[in-house]
Amino acid sequence: MPEVRAFVFDAYGTLFDVHSVVTACRGVTSDPEALSREWRAKQLEYTWLRALMGRYEDFWEVTRAALQFALKRLKIAASQEQVNRLLSAYLSLQPFPEVPATLKTLHSRFPLAILSNGSPRMLQAAVQSSGLEPYLQHVLSVDTLKTYKPNPTVYDLAPRALGLAKETIAFVSSNSFDVVGAKAFGFQVVWCNRTQAPLDELGFAPDFTVSHLDEIPQALGL
Amino acid sequence: MPEVRAFVFDAYGTLFDVHSVVTACRGVTSDPEALSREWRAKQLEYTWLRALMGRYEDFWEVTRAALQFALKRLKIAASQEQVNRLLSAYLSLQPFPEVPATLKTLHSRFPLAILSNGSPRMLQAAVQSSGLEPYLQHVLSVDTLKTYKPNPTVYDLAPRALGLAKETIAFVSSNSFDVVGAKAFGFQVVWCNRTQAPLDELGFAPDFTVSHLDEIPQALGL
Repeated sequence: MPEVRAFVFDAYGTLFDVHSVVTACRGVTSDPEALSREWRAKQLEYTWLRALMGRYEDFWEVTRAALQFALKRLKIAASQEQVNRLLSAYLSLQPFPEVPATLKTLHSRFPLAILSNGSPRMLQAAVQSSGLEPYLQHVLSVDTLKTYKPNPTVYDLAPRALGLAKETIAFVSSNSFDVVGAKAFGFQVVWCNRTQAPLDELGFAPDFTVSHLDEIPQALGL
Repeated sequence: MPEVRAFVFDAYGTLFDVHSVVTACRGVTSDPEALSREWRAKQLEYTWLRALMGRYEDFWEVTRAALQFALKRLKIAASQEQVNRLLSAYLSLQPFPEVPATLKTLHSRFPLAILSNGSPRMLQAAVQSSGLEPYLQHVLSVDTLKTYKPNPTVYDLAPRALGLAKETIAFVSSNSFDVVGAKAFGFQVVWCNRTQAPLDELGFAPDFTVSHLDEIPQALGL
């Protein structure tokens, strides 16, 4: 990757394991993976629909609504206390195992940032509880724009905050739609394809694909 | 429903059974329902993502790309001839059984229109092959705007074409996201909930819910 001057990371699914909420789902249903999957899929769908309708609500509200729908669809009766416990799992998501060391290494050479759909409060909580805060120069949220990825105005937050041309920024995401959106915007893009998923057929491809984030410093000889 | 002066219908899933492509899927895979489901889900997702990215391609191209992805994800090896046959099923989709009689009855009292994500060519083919053309005053496609539902500018095509205030138009869709988008725009909305699906949690609800379209003329005493 030539001329990379900063790394910008997606948060959910890339640094933080959204399916770590499965643990919290365990007391609520006999199939916690199914609830976690349905919840996550609806969460993304609702961001796209709300952005397209011009009816922004922040990611906390979207996450709450997506959980409500997932419980209804899967016919799971959850108490308000259980719903609150599931939601609060989003405030202390586990980072993937290789994340802290990878960010520490990259941080010694590059400015690092997060660019996320998350609300400022959710991102603050996740960054603090995971101990990643010292490595991050910026934690950028769509909330300042009241829209969601892959709206190109969202990606433009990063070059503006970093004071760098978009072509010199490596954007890293595990989410295929986010990879496509970031590439369409004009970043250099690394797809962290943790699940060996096929790439979405939307006309854009990442510059570089890895299975885990620690392959990035390795590829750079760090 | 007071003061309804026209009915506007969504096309795919509402008038036309998109899962009637299952028949065409049969020669390609042992689980044609799974292919049809995955194809349809990606088709919708790609409309939302392309609209949000400002990277419109028409619904034929989106449908083709979604099929390509679905085949990849389900690890189905299809020949180019099979792919072409699957795609062309979209040009002769079956209407749901009650659709022709329902449109015929409503047409005797109201102007009727289609408002759809479909490209003009796809809609023309479906409307002609199903024999619904005589009942429709307008067949409106997002293609004139180069965006997709639930962008509110799409819904605005109908009041403009019909010369009616949006509050006097009943919009009918089986797709929950479309029901929400149409209600947010300001139509009276009928949800044709063919599958007993739960309503999406996006802050808007239909005015009226039916299981089949013939319940509409019945409710109006026609």
